[in-house]
Amino acid sequence: MTEKELSKKTIEILLEIRKHQPLVHHITNFVVMNSTANVTLAIGASPIMAHAHEEMEAMSAFTSVLNLNIGTLTPYWLDSMILAGKVAGERGIPIILDPVGSGATPLRTEAARRILSEIPITVVRGNASEVMSLFAGGEKIKIRGVDSMESVEAVRHGATVMAAELRKVVAVTGEIDFVTNGHSSIEIHNGHPMFRRVTGTGCGASTAISCFCAVEPDPLVATAAALGYYGLAGEEAAKVSNGPGSFQVALYDALYDLSQKTMMEKLRIRPVR
Amino acid sequence: MTEKELSKKTIEILLEIRKHQPLVHHITNFVVMNSTANVTLAIGASPIMAHAHEEMEAMSAFTSVLNLNIGTLTPYWLDSMILAGKVAGERGIPIILDPVGSGATPLRTEAARRILSEIPITVVRGNASEVMSLFAGGEKIKIRGVDSMESVEAVRHGATVMAAELRKVVAVTGEIDFVTNGHSSIEIHNGHPMFRRVTGTGCGASTAISCFCAVEPDPLVATAAALGYYGLAGEEAAKVSNGPGSFQVALYDALYDLSQKTMMEKLRIRPVR
Amino acid sequence: MTEKELSKKTIEILLEIRKHQPLVHHITNFVVMNSTANVTLAIGASPIMAHAHEEMEAMSAFTSVLNLNIGTLTPYWLDSMILAGKVAGERGIPIILDPVGSGATPLRTEAARRILSEIPITVVRGNASEVMSLFAGGEKIKIRGVDSMESVEAVRHGATVMAAELRKVVAVTGEIDFVTNGHSSIEIHNGHPMFRRVTGTGCGASTAISCFCAVEPDPLVATAAALGYYGLAGEEAAKVSNGPGSFQVALYDALYDLSQKTMMEKLRIRPVR
Repeated sequence: MTEKELSKKTIEILLEIRKHQPLVHHITNFVVMNSTANVTLAIGASPIMAHAHEEMEAMSAFTSVLNLNIGTLTPYWLDSMILAGKVAGERGIPIILDPVGSGATPLRTEAARRILSEIPITVVRGNASEVMSLFAGGEKIKIRGVDSMESVEAVRHGATVMAAELRKVVAVTGEIDFVTNGHSSIEIHNGHPMFRRVTGTGCGASTAISCFCAVEPDPLVATAAALGYYGLAGEEAAKVSNGPGSFQVALYDALYDLSQKTMMEKLRIRPVR
Repeated sequence: MTEKELSKKTIEILLEIRKHQPLVHHITNFVVMNSTANVTLAIGASPIMAHAHEEMEAMSAFTSVLNLNIGTLTPYWLDSMILAGKVAGERGIPIILDPVGSGATPLRTEAARRILSEIPITVVRGNASEVMSLFAGGEKIKIRGVDSMESVEAVRHGATVMAAELRKVVAVTGEIDFVTNGHSSIEIHNGHPMFRRVTGTGCGASTAISCFCAVEPDPLVATAAALGYYGLAGEEAAKVSNGPGSFQVALYDALYDLSQKTMMEKLRIRPVR
Repeated sequence: MTEKELSKKTIEILLEIRKHQPLVHHITNFVVMNSTANVTLAIGASPIMAHAHEEMEAMSAFTSVLNLNIGTLTPYWLDSMILAGKVAGERGIPIILDPVGSGATPLRTEAARRILSEIPITVVRGNASEVMSLFAGGEKIKIRGVDSMESVEAVRHGATVMAAELRKVVAVTGEIDFVTNGHSSIEIHNGHPMFRRVTGTGCGASTAISCFCAVEPDPLVATAAALGYYGLAGEEAAKVSNGPGSFQVALYDALYDLSQKTMMEKLRIRPVR
């Protein structure tokens, strides 16, 4: 698809979300439970937050997508993710993994790798160091300095190899987002620096991906469209805000109703040639 | 009481809350802990969030009302509710139950029913499908289609029978809220569609009920007044907001200081004849 | 230092925070995880929320400061604090304790005292009754009536004795904040009544102290500067808000960028003679 076609596709996916209001099951961290539920609602889907082992099977039987996030992780919550992921996998619904803090501590790194090996994850979204921690040899790439051009190339190469080998979509977010399924790749140039001054905005990006994957069967397109929409909402929010507090409020407002005109003009979702 | 008397009563209850600043003990879900604490403070009461088994007895000894909410439930938290509920019941303070997700999974349905059977609940507030899941035969009423007129009548009938049999107040919230003690019933016509696009606003309604029940001895009147006030605050918030983010902010502002004039003119708390 | 020197020092510390973006490890309560992470980011530091026993040692190895908060406490979380605190203590990084609810239940009081005895706490911040519950004889001072002048003197005396004996900084916040290391004391006259109508603003003050202690070696100065900055941000926020919802949003905005001019003119951080 061309950049223009991807803008149109983004609008189509949003209309589908608002028509079907898919149920997005989150097993996520304590910091962002409220904010990601609000991102889900602003986009037009319906959030369910649940983690009790006793209801993972029942809950996973009627949801449209599963969003896993390993912030504030404990072993109990990891087991919740495995339980829900097995059912989601059997049902064939998309599963999104946000490996928060993978690479920072062994608990997180091992948890992310265990989830990837036991659950049929559809999309992984993280920052460069989180994504790098997931692939073989990732330990050897220095985490500091990931913004250098050399490292950006290394991360993209690693992400592409991992995506191809594991048959997943891998999204590396940062100043420019990079999404790949191992064969085709897309860059997203939407976004704003203020995202970094509000907690949970990365987790919110993963939630946006989950909402888009709930109705769009191609996870590469769904992921790129979600990141474009989310980034553009941030750009529009920044225009009417005075700092991180008002930015977050305006972000929810923008996610709720960016106009199709704004999207056609300002989305920057670009296939990598 | 007439509609006008109920408006006056709402104002009186609010003045009492602000005078005594009652302590509202919440055992609630992770998604809404922050937002319901802020609803409590905006209304003029004082929130306490605590769930450790070791302090349930001590904490319940000096609070004015107990708010139970089964979102993000696990067995540990259910036991916290039972422990706190026993002490609250012995002390005779009001106990409000929000059966979030009852009917959706067996864990939730059985938890809500266990709480109702072991704890002297004063008020239950839920949406139609949650309330329907609580009463005998509730399983047989289809959950889908609860907005049809036929179902609305069935739910109201069920709620009235349950309220009379169990000697509780039952509140079914939706486009029009319905509150009953089994003998008298009240409709609340305040509210706004934007409530549905912000997470935890149903839980916030239960918190408002808790604040009102802390100072008003008649739980039917307290519940109706709380839902009227909360719904009207939403109407006023919607006037000055651009989407779900600014709506939530404006909701806290409105809960903090709706004028008596606005309340007398716009509250729609109507006895059902 | 004089009041004017303390204003200048506050600006210097802020510039240091924004230069180094120190990692602030929070083990805190469910109500404020999101809001204190946002306070951290608005001030210019980086929050990490983690509590799993399995990663307390690894996480504590690369953080700049540890923030402990006993709201919504359970024994598991207390053990997390002890585990992280031991490593933080060995590394010599500052540790801030917010004894939320100490004095209200034995669980909280005993937890706060255990933390103080087992972990080398740098700063304790609480309201008068929380701080009073921590020192020997604290039980005998009436908790009600802490705003009377007599009690204010008693609390300040107790805080000063405790600070000197335990070699810690003790901060008692209220209408006028009081910070002491047992030898020198500082009053902070910044602040606003609206702080009391938003949940977690006391926890946010402790987070501000943690951010300031991460880069300023003198914890008395760091604590006083943090409380002055946080209080002044509240004053500025109150000017542009209509109630508790918009106040909280404006508070984040103000924490993000109070001008140096505003700080030099309006900070009220006064050495006690």
